Amino acid sequence: MQFHDRPVFPRGFRCASRNCGLKPAPARDLALFVSDVDAVAAAVFTRNFFPGAPVVLGRETIRGGVLRAIVANSKVSNVATGERGLEDARRMAAAAAAEVGTSADRVLVSSTGVIGVRLPIETIERGIRGMRAELRDDPLVGAEGIMTTDTHPKALSVGVGDATITWVAKGSGMIEPNMATMLAYVFTDAALDAPALDAALREAVAVSFNMLSVDSDTSTSDTCAVLANGLAGPVDAGAFRAALTAGCVRMAETLARDGEGATRLLRAIVRGAKDAADARRVAKSLVNSPLIKTMVHGADPNVGRILMAVGKCFDCAIVPASTDAWVNGYQVVRGGLRLDFDDATVRAALGTDRVDLEVALGAGDGAATAYGCDLTKGYIDENAAYYSS
Amino acid sequence: MQFHDRPVFPRGFRCASRNCGLKPAPARDLALFVSDVDAVAAAVFTRNFFPGAPVVLGRETIRGGVLRAIVANSKVSNVATGERGLEDARRMAAAAAAEVGTSADRVLVSSTGVIGVRLPIETIERGIRGMRAELRDDPLVGAEGIMTTDTHPKALSVGVGDATITWVAKGSGMIEPNMATMLAYVFTDAALDAPALDAALREAVAVSFNMLSVDSDTSTSDTCAVLANGLAGPVDAGAFRAALTAGCVRMAETLARDGEGATRLLRAIVRGAKDAADARRVAKSLVNSPLIKTMVHGADPNVGRILMAVGKCFDCAIVPASTDAWVNGYQVVRGGLRLDFDDATVRAALGTDRVDLEVALGAGDGAATAYGCDLTKGYIDENAAYYSS
Repeated sequence: MQFHDRPVFPRGFRCASRNCGLKPAPARDLALFVSDVDAVAAAVFTRNFFPGAPVVLGRETIRGGVLRAIVANSKVSNVATGERGLEDARRMAAAAAAEVGTSADRVLVSSTGVIGVRLPIETIERGIRGMRAELRDDPLVGAEGIMTTDTHPKALSVGVGDATITWVAKGSGMIEPNMATMLAYVFTDAALDAPALDAALREAVAVSFNMLSVDSDTSTSDTCAVLANGLAGPVDAGAFRAALTAGCVRMAETLARDGEGATRLLRAIVRGAKDAADARRVAKSLVNSPLIKTMVHGADPNVGRILMAVGKCFDCAIVPASTDAWVNGYQVVRGGLRLDFDDATVRAALGTDRVDLEVALGAGDGAATAYGCDLTKGYIDENAAYYSS
Repeated sequence: MQFHDRPVFPRGFRCASRNCGLKPAPARDLALFVSDVDAVAAAVFTRNFFPGAPVVLGRETIRGGVLRAIVANSKVSNVATGERGLEDARRMAAAAAAEVGTSADRVLVSSTGVIGVRLPIETIERGIRGMRAELRDDPLVGAEGIMTTDTHPKALSVGVGDATITWVAKGSGMIEPNMATMLAYVFTDAALDAPALDAALREAVAVSFNMLSVDSDTSTSDTCAVLANGLAGPVDAGAFRAALTAGCVRMAETLARDGEGATRLLRAIVRGAKDAADARRVAKSLVNSPLIKTMVHGADPNVGRILMAVGKCFDCAIVPASTDAWVNGYQVVRGGLRLDFDDATVRAALGTDRVDLEVALGAGDGAATAYGCDLTKGYIDENAAYYSS
């Protein structure tokens, strides 16, 4: 899959972002994504029992299967705010609909930031006014408006036949999505019907955002939506699904690499599991283990910890004598026993920008890959004073 | 339960510890605990699929139900070392048996430290020789011999009728035991039969060490053993079980408070859950959440995260509208909504030495308490170079 060097929008999509006063200027805190025409849409949301008001509203909105716009703010997530929060989310949708010239039921709302604080809705309403005139064709402009602790805006694009698919996302902490990632929007000018789009999105999310974990904490705001406005006409269905999945995986890697405080991308590649569910569990156990994550951070060849993290998957079929492991292709465990490896070689492998821990379980054909990052002092800095700073 | 100011051994128990050369002198790395007479014994071990050789041997040894001694080393855990590792563990038991004057099947062996490195068995055999002459009645001497990243030796004692119960333990990282904690030994001169002792131990471990998590990582060496030598005669069974449980809980708190890098004890007290299993899951979710742990570390009143950590327990019965939460007795959430609380009050509560997060789920009668600690830069320091340092 060849991604564009610089992300571009598919035909008929544009965006704008602003500082509306939620964050100190000039940091952008408000983003608007618009399609010139109605787009077929699908979305998946967090499974957390305390979903934010925008998620509650979004589930209602997406039932229509059609979107014209997405409006999103950062800094305040509008979660645990009750009826008033839901009313605020509706007002935000209505304000964006009025600005764009559509109805509120065709606008998806997202909010990200601190949990349990009321949304300053008047500030946001004022902020939305006039954004239509600022709409541009650079996805990174919109990506900037939804950043929280992200260190850079995230967008990518790929061609499929005559069509383009473009991803815009944010997410750095409270990331072990269980449906989608914090906020990820996918735009395409390919023509698809709603059931096909929904199926393609769920297939892609299962192996990408749902296999991503920065810190094992599942946000109350996770939202992943795809908008297909059809302006490029139909494309090959198989090619579209492959491209959608590849882009979601790439974006999950991008989010993991920019996890709060992270310095390295960590991938756990598991094969030979009893089934896919076992493979997913073992892969997640590896990327979620604080001792694996600190080992990778320090490039410390303490690879016995790989066995610890595999061995604590109590509900999986783990056969010590058939368990092998590699670090970036260099074998460190065979048959459940640590090999007498060269420390310097393993240290060098762990010191690279992308560390692949590969585990073969010898118990079946199940395979899965999980995406994570190292655990550093930067994570502590970000999260010991997130509310206060 | 009134614990002694300073731990003492029950009648007939003594211990010694030494530097035998595994660690740089004068750090102690070898401990021997001895009963003057055979003791009825029970033990529980890690459920990790890659148990250390001493755990494999210990399961065999404890089947006899009788122990005279425990020998333990720190620095090297003898895990993932195969047949040779098991042979080394047997040699260690034999050396201690010869020193004490008993048979090897009455000696429990423990090793703790780096995974996947061969035990320097000759060094340990030499170290054991002559330890009998150094046996003393201070449990802290033995506790010192089994420390790894612990910042202080851990032991406590309590009286039950004419008998005494004494705990000696270590454990600071790789701590979410799933049977027992890293290493915890309980000594008593009460007279109990083996089935009663085993039942009492399992009951105590379920609500203490098995509800403890420093970092969600389950060690390959967890061992908790109890030795009852009967020298004080029989005691009231109910009082013994209550004391055993209270001491195990107290020791779990002691281990959590000294978790790697920890500055505070974190307790998650959950009630009103559908059942006890749900309560345990929610309590563990709270003490394992990196975002809760960093919030506590920074005394940052970002208590919306409590709802996040409760809400990600996907398999539990969570009813947002009936979910309440308190920080050290101060209510911050009612009916799933964040209250408009005073930041300074919550900040002060989070800044104490022991932080209780209490959650009422309103879904039934299930209750559980989990024990953990804050997440700090000290944890990163300890674990990014554990192997290399």
